[in-house]
Amino acid sequence: MTLVDRVLLGPGPSNPYPEATAALAAPLLGHLDPVFLGILDETCERLRTVWGTDNRRTLPLSGTGSIGMEAAFANTVRAGDPVVVAVNGLFGERMCEVAGRYGATVIRVDHEWGDPVDVERVLAAHPAPRLVGAVHAETSTGVRSDLAALGAALRERGGDTLLLADCVTSLAGIEVAVDDWGVDLAYSGTQKCLGVAPGLAPFTMSERAWERRVEHPPTWYLDLGLIGDYVSGSAGGGRTYHHTAPVAMIASLHAALGRVLAEGLPSVFERHAAAGRRLQEGLVELGLDLFAAEGHRLPELTTVRVPADVDSAQVRRRLLDEYGIEIGAGAGKYASTVWRIGLMGHNARLDRAELVLAALRRVLGR
Amino acid sequence: MTLVDRVLLGPGPSNPYPEATAALAAPLLGHLDPVFLGILDETCERLRTVWGTDNRRTLPLSGTGSIGMEAAFANTVRAGDPVVVAVNGLFGERMCEVAGRYGATVIRVDHEWGDPVDVERVLAAHPAPRLVGAVHAETSTGVRSDLAALGAALRERGGDTLLLADCVTSLAGIEVAVDDWGVDLAYSGTQKCLGVAPGLAPFTMSERAWERRVEHPPTWYLDLGLIGDYVSGSAGGGRTYHHTAPVAMIASLHAALGRVLAEGLPSVFERHAAAGRRLQEGLVELGLDLFAAEGHRLPELTTVRVPADVDSAQVRRRLLDEYGIEIGAGAGKYASTVWRIGLMGHNARLDRAELVLAALRRVLGR
Repeated sequence: MTLVDRVLLGPGPSNPYPEATAALAAPLLGHLDPVFLGILDETCERLRTVWGTDNRRTLPLSGTGSIGMEAAFANTVRAGDPVVVAVNGLFGERMCEVAGRYGATVIRVDHEWGDPVDVERVLAAHPAPRLVGAVHAETSTGVRSDLAALGAALRERGGDTLLLADCVTSLAGIEVAVDDWGVDLAYSGTQKCLGVAPGLAPFTMSERAWERRVEHPPTWYLDLGLIGDYVSGSAGGGRTYHHTAPVAMIASLHAALGRVLAEGLPSVFERHAAAGRRLQEGLVELGLDLFAAEGHRLPELTTVRVPADVDSAQVRRRLLDEYGIEIGAGAGKYASTVWRIGLMGHNARLDRAELVLAALRRVLGR
Repeated sequence: MTLVDRVLLGPGPSNPYPEATAALAAPLLGHLDPVFLGILDETCERLRTVWGTDNRRTLPLSGTGSIGMEAAFANTVRAGDPVVVAVNGLFGERMCEVAGRYGATVIRVDHEWGDPVDVERVLAAHPAPRLVGAVHAETSTGVRSDLAALGAALRERGGDTLLLADCVTSLAGIEVAVDDWGVDLAYSGTQKCLGVAPGLAPFTMSERAWERRVEHPPTWYLDLGLIGDYVSGSAGGGRTYHHTAPVAMIASLHAALGRVLAEGLPSVFERHAAAGRRLQEGLVELGLDLFAAEGHRLPELTTVRVPADVDSAQVRRRLLDEYGIEIGAGAGKYASTVWRIGLMGHNARLDRAELVLAALRRVLGR
């Protein structure tokens, strides 16, 4: 079969770090092999560093990013629990859907798509919800919300409310500081700024969330009590088999995290910032309008309006066919009026920014 | 990092087919890329061939094998539904646990571990259960059960009962014939006879099961209605985004299935049979006792009793340290008194059988 080589500049997956790809093809290990268990322990430790947490329960879940959202709700929400969700894009919408399936009484706080989360409105929605959910980096709109402020406000109010953060498109691209911000539960995906193929959901859970967890959730596969006994060992010390870990994907994540931490998180963030800044400047130079609210734009994922006289799908098809470049359509009601351009992980580079700008310039005839 | 090379002869993962490893490291594609969607369609078509089914809903689920069990129960069982489970090992036990979490009234039909499923007893357990679950190839005991006979008996009785088959350790190693046997739901894992790293759960669902499904299951990630709209297209025709597919793992499964079908399923089954036969003969020649009931032994996974004067863990450690060979401990109460030796997928070869026999002979001093 002829292999097809793409430059993946959509909302994910992005092209993996070379170390991540090499690790995928390394000799496979058993999921109970002492060498693999060492890699797993080190992966969890490296995840603690990028999450900015000491949480013991920090691990890669065996599914794609969405499984992290499901695990968070399944392990914390009981029927009738009030749950406040800040909705400013597709993934806030999805939080409402998933929380509802686990029986939560969902209180939506709707925002215009493209705007960041309004902390005051979220706080005003309910005096003491079981959980507040918000998206740090909305993959559907390219918007960054201030979760530090949300966490500080919740802590100031006091009470038992847990804070859940969707960090699918932020982790290892912009700063995430779970402990400093007072985030109790957070999940990500591997195929964005972490620079790994899709297939794992890095996850972290505070002691506070652990103490308030649902002890016997409907899901067996995502029962964090059972998974934790395999990943971190049980209270008695030993590891208990739960399900066969996706060893190749974990080895790949381990390698990518090694690369990221060797470069250093400040340098990784600056690389994302510089690439995104250049892309956003360049798009404006092309006469295009950025979609996300100014001052709240993610560097790693840029949203831009499709000009009124341009066929969105045709441009994307030409970029793919003529240049091998994938960019994303918009999400939801913006499917044909917004493009999403990601410069994430290994693609967070000035050359990628210039490449997509040059190709867009040619295809748009500007 | 120094790479460690193992011969994986436990109950899985096994060493992948070389084509599967190469595909993991191929350039990554986007999950909506037309080239990837072609690979996904072809993967589902190839899965239909190895499952022996025309089921439209045949797909790889985005998690390890256990997620297939969870998806099966989540999408078919409502609170209070009577569910009969044939328990003759660990994975039958797990079926009871998972079915119970989704609210089923579980009727267990317990067997001695090491024995195959007794069709008459399963039928006698309940006159009209919602679902009967059984394990085709018990990974914990190395036993094959006659699911053709179970399916035929259920069809003869008539009624609405669905048949669920755990084929984690059988698919692409011994014959599986979903349509001929009257199986309504079945799942497998990629890390056994399919010869791929762990991370996906091949799954198939009959029209009958689809018509009786739970329309709004508690799980969003495993809602087969939503997943089906992405994998096979919705009733309206188009594909709808659900979650980002694990593209590298799917490309790897696609490649392994290509290899298996190029060799031809009859030849693949004969290769597994020959390797297992030789291993089992050789173990008896070493003076060891096989565990699974005679006449019901899986060729791809052999269980053998640890001699009374031998330390099971020490032997496994020496095999790993001195020969790079991984074999498995027993499961459950047989953890230290049984070994499990797999010759699955790419390892279903006479040279692997001779290798593990030779190493065992040395380590046991026989």
